[in-house]
Amino acid sequence: MVLLGSTGSIGVNALIIAKRFGIMVEALVAGKNIALLNEQIKEHHPKYVAISDANDRKLVNHTNVFVGKEGILELLQKTQSYLVVNALVGFVGLAPSIEALRLGKRLALANKESLVVAGHLLDTSHITPIDSEHFGLWYLLGKRPVRGMTITASGGAFRDTPLEELGKMSFQDALKHPNWSMGAKITIDSATMTNKLFELLEAKWLFGVDRLDAIIEPKSLIHAFINFKDGSTTAHLAVADMKLPIAFALVGEVEEPILPSLDLASIGSFSFQKIEAARYPIWEIKEDVLAHPTRGVVINAANEVGIAKFFNQEINILELAERTIKAYRHFEDAIPKSLDEVFEIDREVRRYCLSF
Amino acid sequence: MVLLGSTGSIGVNALIIAKRFGIMVEALVAGKNIALLNEQIKEHHPKYVAISDANDRKLVNHTNVFVGKEGILELLQKTQSYLVVNALVGFVGLAPSIEALRLGKRLALANKESLVVAGHLLDTSHITPIDSEHFGLWYLLGKRPVRGMTITASGGAFRDTPLEELGKMSFQDALKHPNWSMGAKITIDSATMTNKLFELLEAKWLFGVDRLDAIIEPKSLIHAFINFKDGSTTAHLAVADMKLPIAFALVGEVEEPILPSLDLASIGSFSFQKIEAARYPIWEIKEDVLAHPTRGVVINAANEVGIAKFFNQEINILELAERTIKAYRHFEDAIPKSLDEVFEIDREVRRYCLSF
Repeated sequence: MVLLGSTGSIGVNALIIAKRFGIMVEALVAGKNIALLNEQIKEHHPKYVAISDANDRKLVNHTNVFVGKEGILELLQKTQSYLVVNALVGFVGLAPSIEALRLGKRLALANKESLVVAGHLLDTSHITPIDSEHFGLWYLLGKRPVRGMTITASGGAFRDTPLEELGKMSFQDALKHPNWSMGAKITIDSATMTNKLFELLEAKWLFGVDRLDAIIEPKSLIHAFINFKDGSTTAHLAVADMKLPIAFALVGEVEEPILPSLDLASIGSFSFQKIEAARYPIWEIKEDVLAHPTRGVVINAANEVGIAKFFNQEINILELAERTIKAYRHFEDAIPKSLDEVFEIDREVRRYCLSF
Repeated sequence: MVLLGSTGSIGVNALIIAKRFGIMVEALVAGKNIALLNEQIKEHHPKYVAISDANDRKLVNHTNVFVGKEGILELLQKTQSYLVVNALVGFVGLAPSIEALRLGKRLALANKESLVVAGHLLDTSHITPIDSEHFGLWYLLGKRPVRGMTITASGGAFRDTPLEELGKMSFQDALKHPNWSMGAKITIDSATMTNKLFELLEAKWLFGVDRLDAIIEPKSLIHAFINFKDGSTTAHLAVADMKLPIAFALVGEVEEPILPSLDLASIGSFSFQKIEAARYPIWEIKEDVLAHPTRGVVINAANEVGIAKFFNQEINILELAERTIKAYRHFEDAIPKSLDEVFEIDREVRRYCLSF
């Protein structure tokens, strides 16, 4: 397989699963964590490696190193593997997703931004999502007609923060996710609930279902519900551990133990809370976004600019969502009809969001 | 179809579903509720009817009336329908189950005692269970390997009764089931948890799974869980309404709305409690019974005698379970090797249980 984003939490788990199932690792793509990359090279002997910064090249213990965004595309073209795991973070993951699909490869996709910004332009029949919610939905789906789907949210770092204190919360505070250990970007997106809005868009493109919703389940043990037309609801539950969706994305059907089973008696209870726009302002536009899912590129670009500004302490977390909503309303006609237009609109929205 | 037990709660719902899906009702079998039977005859025009008591014959508005246990078997032999719904209560349902299968019919089985007493001697490939737990398990099952199954219990009428008051509770008290409106026998069995022990035995014969458990879910909205080998757990949820399993048992796959979907936000929470032997003494022998599932006939006979004694105020509800356990231990070698032996052992156990 080819692994894009090998040193992040998805990448590390993907290598554990690859080792367990004897999957050859043909290429590793990492960012700045060269120490870990070197360990991975030592263990998995990839044929190709790519990193983000040319200055790090001399630190990498490998003779076949590609550099930068273009380097990832060149690397993809060299590889023979059928399976590409894309665990890059943010819009930068889109071009490799497009290239992997263009090369006829199967895409195990943890880079949800690819689907958020261009879901209507990608061939989802070649995509397996790597995340617990869509894995849960996929696991539950059969041939029975579906009425609607619901995914769960943990509520993020500020689920229980008094509303009046939200504005004071720092980037570091937002990184304290209650249940999952993940990268910084997705953890911030969890705190704003933007992550869940993205996942609803992903579900829309992956499953073609229109009635989509999300609900807070604070323990992050129930990941997804499907309401079937007959009146049945089914739920997918599992320990919060990405090895399960990763194993299925890498191997197909998995018939051996990946995680221990839940013990319901010791869990004791589950509770559900509505997602309130007062705490998660992005939720104001949820219905509108689901009715106009092709405008995901606008939300994503505004969100990425906003996260950088939040990191730089230029704005607080509530303003982050408000700016995204402002951009979403400003660009109401920005519907990309081609992948080129996705990149164009992305640039335009970023320019706009940096201007205020 | 042929409907055995037409005037009980399963029977009434089965006729609603039959009407909705245009299923012809060839025969109705009822007990003592002749008024309701006459209404059903007027609406569904069955070709054959059976009742339990010859004295009621003149009250039945039908020219083709069979009487008694033998009458049910004669009626079955006359019918042409492929589908037999057996919603009779207790051991008396076994002979019609055997006869229906012998005649090559498909058996939609609400009479759980048939499987409890003779599950190893019946062809379960021709049986569709009518109850929410096994329907839930069936609905969740796919081709993935199973680690274990868990069904839920409401806890019955005495779930929250102080332990020291259990002995004082009357038959009428036991009939106050919190969630389901059902017949008297199954409601008593819910109060003692014997119903759940029976359902574990049913699951054993229907699905061939050994790791079986039950847990209390007081809202009766989650009906079943499957733990898959990979570590996933799936759950089946639905409004507590038997029309859903009945519809699938009568029609096969149902692709239209039977029940409204659950609203998780308004439900708010689920809780789980272990089933404690202090409250439900029958649970003491649960593991032993699952290890010796062919001894179900002993438990059932002792339980039926005990319920009659509880109804007659000869014993209290804790003694009911204790007597069943005593019989189960007394007849530890009573393993029926044929259907004839099931009837023999049943008679012998009843005789024993009436002797003390």
